[in-house]
Amino acid sequence: MNCSFKFSAKLIVYLFFLLFVCNPNSSLGQSKPNIILFLIDDMGWQDCSVPFDQTKSPLNQRYHTPNMEKMASQGMKFTNAYATPVCTPTRTSLLTGMNAAHHGVTNWTSPQRNTNSDNPDAQLQAVDWNMNGLSPVPNISKTVYATPFPKLLAQAGYYTIHVGKAHWASMGTPGANPYNMGFQVNIAGHAAGHPQSYLGKDNYGNLPGKASAQAVPDLEEYFGTDSFLTEALTLEAIKALEQPVKNKQPFFLNMAHYAVHTPIMADKRFVQKYYDQGLDSTEARYASLVEGMDKSLGDLMQWLDQKGIASNTIIMFISDNGGLSLKPQRGGAAHSQNLPLRAGKGSVYEGGIRIPMLVQWPNKVPANSIAKQYVIVEDFFPSILALAGINNPKLVQTIDGKSFLPVLKNPLFQDSTRSLVWHYPNKWIPNDGPGINYFSAIRQGNWKLVYNQRNGRKELYHLSKDLGETNDLSNEFPNKVQALSQLLSQQLTHWKAKMPIVISTGKPVPFPSER
Amino acid sequence: MNCSFKFSAKLIVYLFFLLFVCNPNSSLGQSKPNIILFLIDDMGWQDCSVPFDQTKSPLNQRYHTPNMEKMASQGMKFTNAYATPVCTPTRTSLLTGMNAAHHGVTNWTSPQRNTNSDNPDAQLQAVDWNMNGLSPVPNISKTVYATPFPKLLAQAGYYTIHVGKAHWASMGTPGANPYNMGFQVNIAGHAAGHPQSYLGKDNYGNLPGKASAQAVPDLEEYFGTDSFLTEALTLEAIKALEQPVKNKQPFFLNMAHYAVHTPIMADKRFVQKYYDQGLDSTEARYASLVEGMDKSLGDLMQWLDQKGIASNTIIMFISDNGGLSLKPQRGGAAHSQNLPLRAGKGSVYEGGIRIPMLVQWPNKVPANSIAKQYVIVEDFFPSILALAGINNPKLVQTIDGKSFLPVLKNPLFQDSTRSLVWHYPNKWIPNDGPGINYFSAIRQGNWKLVYNQRNGRKELYHLSKDLGETNDLSNEFPNKVQALSQLLSQQLTHWKAKMPIVISTGKPVPFPSER
Repeated sequence: MNCSFKFSAKLIVYLFFLLFVCNPNSSLGQSKPNIILFLIDDMGWQDCSVPFDQTKSPLNQRYHTPNMEKMASQGMKFTNAYATPVCTPTRTSLLTGMNAAHHGVTNWTSPQRNTNSDNPDAQLQAVDWNMNGLSPVPNISKTVYATPFPKLLAQAGYYTIHVGKAHWASMGTPGANPYNMGFQVNIAGHAAGHPQSYLGKDNYGNLPGKASAQAVPDLEEYFGTDSFLTEALTLEAIKALEQPVKNKQPFFLNMAHYAVHTPIMADKRFVQKYYDQGLDSTEARYASLVEGMDKSLGDLMQWLDQKGIASNTIIMFISDNGGLSLKPQRGGAAHSQNLPLRAGKGSVYEGGIRIPMLVQWPNKVPANSIAKQYVIVEDFFPSILALAGINNPKLVQTIDGKSFLPVLKNPLFQDSTRSLVWHYPNKWIPNDGPGINYFSAIRQGNWKLVYNQRNGRKELYHLSKDLGETNDLSNEFPNKVQALSQLLSQQLTHWKAKMPIVISTGKPVPFPSER
Repeated sequence: MNCSFKFSAKLIVYLFFLLFVCNPNSSLGQSKPNIILFLIDDMGWQDCSVPFDQTKSPLNQRYHTPNMEKMASQGMKFTNAYATPVCTPTRTSLLTGMNAAHHGVTNWTSPQRNTNSDNPDAQLQAVDWNMNGLSPVPNISKTVYATPFPKLLAQAGYYTIHVGKAHWASMGTPGANPYNMGFQVNIAGHAAGHPQSYLGKDNYGNLPGKASAQAVPDLEEYFGTDSFLTEALTLEAIKALEQPVKNKQPFFLNMAHYAVHTPIMADKRFVQKYYDQGLDSTEARYASLVEGMDKSLGDLMQWLDQKGIASNTIIMFISDNGGLSLKPQRGGAAHSQNLPLRAGKGSVYEGGIRIPMLVQWPNKVPANSIAKQYVIVEDFFPSILALAGINNPKLVQTIDGKSFLPVLKNPLFQDSTRSLVWHYPNKWIPNDGPGINYFSAIRQGNWKLVYNQRNGRKELYHLSKDLGETNDLSNEFPNKVQALSQLLSQQLTHWKAKMPIVISTGKPVPFPSER
């Protein structure tokens, strides 16, 4: 009997070892959390009913995002989260953990290879940027070679799913294909940055003879139907998730909606009430795109509940840059769409880079909590790896992001010495806008320096006192300007960041400390 | 010590139990074979250097398929394997285990929903067939609702990959999307039945404003490159296979090449030698398509060897119908391309339905063996499930196929009582051809009855004596004609097979025993 007892005790240890250690899938199925990155395109900091500022703004009152509200109440709201001014740089930073000034994919990539999306300029020659995007294999011209984190997740036993917009690299390069980034499933992701159409009736653009490079792939099931793109992607995501759930395999879902990018088309399920409110018709359609996106979030959350896996699933909600604020693409006055933030997409002002961010992880991340620590999109790389328990991953790049797990554990976590850098040596639109075209910026603590590459002008703002960046303090605090110029220049030099060439001199624009 | 020894012995049993039984993935990784279905489009019985007839024909001498030769020498060659006359019926039979007369998808499906691909006819009204294809969900108009076997494989722990042509259903229905068939990975499969272009330089058709419904999805990585479609699909398949191999998960790969369907475009890697031989230029290009397909087979076989999994991987090679024999799409005289078989794609004569078939499974299927037992494409459903160890699967359909495992075990296995049925109540081409448009047929033993629905004419052939179906024996063997007519009518009635309506009478064409 004694012997038998000892046998059983030892056996249990062995069984445990086998079930939780020896077999990677089994082990992961039990211990590793599922991760959903819910990534919206071009959604501004104010484009929801969750207030990311201290009070509920008129825009917060306009938009209806009940599922974001639910997520905020169940998890953590980050009020100082940042991306880059436009999409591909953000998406590259996400996948590589590198700052845009470091990875050199500083503008959006054209679907066509070796095609500079920059607008021509009379004064500045186009910068030599990585216009073909991110490459998971070396020696591809005009790309940054890096190890994308989904590859590491897949290696660690995660079932990796990409749904929606990819836009990591140009056609004809490996990065155009999400499979090469480590995704085992790809639905609707390709080299293009927006959908040709959101409508199933339009086959999402796949109409014979009319398809552009933006025709959305993989959704033939919904062609000719009333399914709005956001809905079709959600249904496909849920379908793809059935497999890992059945196999008790942990999953990573990159739920990368095409919404709310142009073309701003009405989601018929939601648009009428916005029309009825007398909103500008474009803004009414935009609000319906936002609400459709929120519905998708709710559907996923509900599905997690139904499957009984909500408690083991981390959801992270972000946008890839600020809300579009150009006319005539948006309704209302230009650059009013992200108020109180200044400007919008394309700008290094807060309207272009500050993004909504929510993180939910039941019983792990405190409910209804608010984190004011500033974080930036490259932080997701180390954070996601840490959440997945991946230590010392084998990478070809050096990462710049910092894990925000300390913040998730303690929303009051504070680090005001860290500096965040934005670098946009490109010409996004034909005519310069506020903070748009050829700008760099740096934030440290509450101070932010904005550097105009074209004319060398530097502006200084104190963000906690002046969120709208209306009061330039550069004349009052020259030492702060100098210190931040130094810090910014050091970082840009360290990353070998590119500057545009001044046509008249043939020399690159100097770094901010040099003028 | 004794106690410890007993402990170890018991422990080993437990360990074994845990590793090989408790955990489905681990278990499958060890005991379930990988399965590759290598499915070629429109490849004829003679389109290779492997002789499927008793002697090597002039066509066998024209084509270069060294990897098929290797596969034949390592495995089993089926000389009497059949599909249906055209693609979608075959693909539906494969996925459902049902005969085409039973599933009712008797013609190729248009990418557009509710669009009859039949040609108009002055005498016969279009048959009420399932023109929207196969549906894995019920209540979809004009579809056959069935459980596709990849769904069952996925449920049993297989990693299921579709690469290439799908063509199971029209856009706007669930079947258009391979994910709904149980494939976890889909690369390049959609509602269309052929590629717009085989050339990477053409983006496989995805040229803005020029794309048709046949533009191949998912291959943006190769856009603008020299990669021929066959090569790109092979590279993508191998990439997708890395995942299950790494996880020791059994896989099913549906390697469904677009080759060698029209447009007959030159595969530059191989075409020159065929031009140099003075072949008709279309036929030279066709031969290059064939050789490119064979290269893909070789690459996959080599990869299996490199990964050390060849011995645990079953490869099954087939085509989806006979070789195209129409002019001007093919070079040479019309209907000469499958000689000694009569006619080609679209026909119920042997040229339209007899297909090359090879099965390789090292140490399980006898090497260099030849099976003469006739088999048909719906037999793959029960065969694949049996190979995967799936017993009593839950199906919504009744299957008609019979497992050919007895043949794989014993190439001399013989069953000459079984009957095979072909039913094509559709109008494939504008003008009737040999055995093309409105035909049914039945084979039992070596006897074959061909029934012309339009005029009621019946022909009788003895296949082992008259492979080319040139000698109609119906007048000599009226009793055989009557018996086979009865058998065919019984089967068609049992399956509720549809017949076209005679416009002048408003009544359906009678079954063969009725006239």
